[in-house]
Amino acid sequence: MARIETRLYLDEDLGAGRTLGLDHARAHFLRTVLRLSRGAELALFNGRDGEWLARIDGLGKGWASLVVERRLRAQDAAPDLWLVFAPIKRARLDFLVEKATELGVARLQPAMTRYTAVGRVNTERLAANAREAAEQCGRLSLPEVMAPKRLFDLLADWPAERRLLLCAESGEARPIAEVLSDQAAGAPEPRPAAVMTGPEGGYAPAELDALRKLPFVTPVGLGPRVLRADTAALAALACWQAALGDGRQRPVREPGET
Amino acid sequence: MARIETRLYLDEDLGAGRTLGLDHARAHFLRTVLRLSRGAELALFNGRDGEWLARIDGLGKGWASLVVERRLRAQDAAPDLWLVFAPIKRARLDFLVEKATELGVARLQPAMTRYTAVGRVNTERLAANAREAAEQCGRLSLPEVMAPKRLFDLLADWPAERRLLLCAESGEARPIAEVLSDQAAGAPEPRPAAVMTGPEGGYAPAELDALRKLPFVTPVGLGPRVLRADTAALAALACWQAALGDGRQRPVREPGET
Repeated sequence: MARIETRLYLDEDLGAGRTLGLDHARAHFLRTVLRLSRGAELALFNGRDGEWLARIDGLGKGWASLVVERRLRAQDAAPDLWLVFAPIKRARLDFLVEKATELGVARLQPAMTRYTAVGRVNTERLAANAREAAEQCGRLSLPEVMAPKRLFDLLADWPAERRLLLCAESGEARPIAEVLSDQAAGAPEPRPAAVMTGPEGGYAPAELDALRKLPFVTPVGLGPRVLRADTAALAALACWQAALGDGRQRPVREPGET
Repeated sequence: MARIETRLYLDEDLGAGRTLGLDHARAHFLRTVLRLSRGAELALFNGRDGEWLARIDGLGKGWASLVVERRLRAQDAAPDLWLVFAPIKRARLDFLVEKATELGVARLQPAMTRYTAVGRVNTERLAANAREAAEQCGRLSLPEVMAPKRLFDLLADWPAERRLLLCAESGEARPIAEVLSDQAAGAPEPRPAAVMTGPEGGYAPAELDALRKLPFVTPVGLGPRVLRADTAALAALACWQAALGDGRQRPVREPGET
């Protein structure tokens, strides 16, 4: 059985026999871009009911109806990992959101820092990019895209049990491999976590001082090169998933696939 | 002392008292884009003599001369890590080259695979992107950009002692954290290594079969999501540097800097 190429996130209850309609944009996408027709198979997910096989039942100019057939995968418990990031330029931010989604973050939280040069964040654009990446990479849920918060407000409301790995290019920091290895040894289940990365201009000294004093913050070192904010975030997320997250699992394939 | 913001790679011998000229493009960049003037400080590196402080001695329309003053850092021994990649679309390839350079790869090797959809590789563009990223991230050398090779030719000439980590989204593969941990335990010094990532369409079955039979190839798993080729490469490079590379070192700062 070939892999189902088309995956869609829909905010609808999924179950065998249900009939669902698609909005104009997605119907157009299936018909005109993917050139699918009646009978074509899709995979659907909604973030709670797992992944379902569906089939196009009808398709016209600007509309499509689907019939849900059977469940392909049960909903999984995704790792509880957030990304906190200072907004950066648009092309880099698009890329960061795509990659962070593939790397399995549960939440994307923009944080406005002192040296953040980007004044506004288009959260709808972030959410659209995250959805597309989630559909493509086989996730069963979307990352939650949060409204931007000022860094100090975010820290004031921070849940105490959630560890915050601070990508810090200067000052004292233990190597990320050491930090993660200690965290893995300390507990059978990983604690909720977050990776935080600053703006292109770095953190202000007062921000760094404040961050370093917080009990849930651990500065981590990522080697001798000065990484861009987006590179640092991706490197730290990849290391966390490999050491503490679901890096031990394999992609789920359907029976008969290689 | 403030960090020197402008770093340039120059293929010239560096030493105290030397006077160097810049080509038209770089002179224009210093004068018109960065708006530097006579007396401004630069950091120079050439991949062999370390990093040197230089000062602009003269600057005009399309020309600049520099005087080298003193050495800031000795040349380091960079980790011996290659990236082998099937060419992907231009924007993604630019990004991959930038990130791989920041993550410290010593060589960028394009490999043409069966399903590689991109027929030509602009190695000059790759080299320019790699140089810019190297200048920005504080490296003391450039990654070597190789001419594209067919995958099977590359494998036929592969140096036997160099381990090849294959980012494989399907089939048997051990989690990357396990593989790296075993490799770290096995030897005091890491062996030469490479990360390899396929085209967007994946490897052909015959390619995967051949790769898996080679003694220097280890397939590594990167978790349950199906990562894009560029994401997989960056995740594997980040994990390798953290576990076996220079992830334990901190960025070098000048005296007095925080």
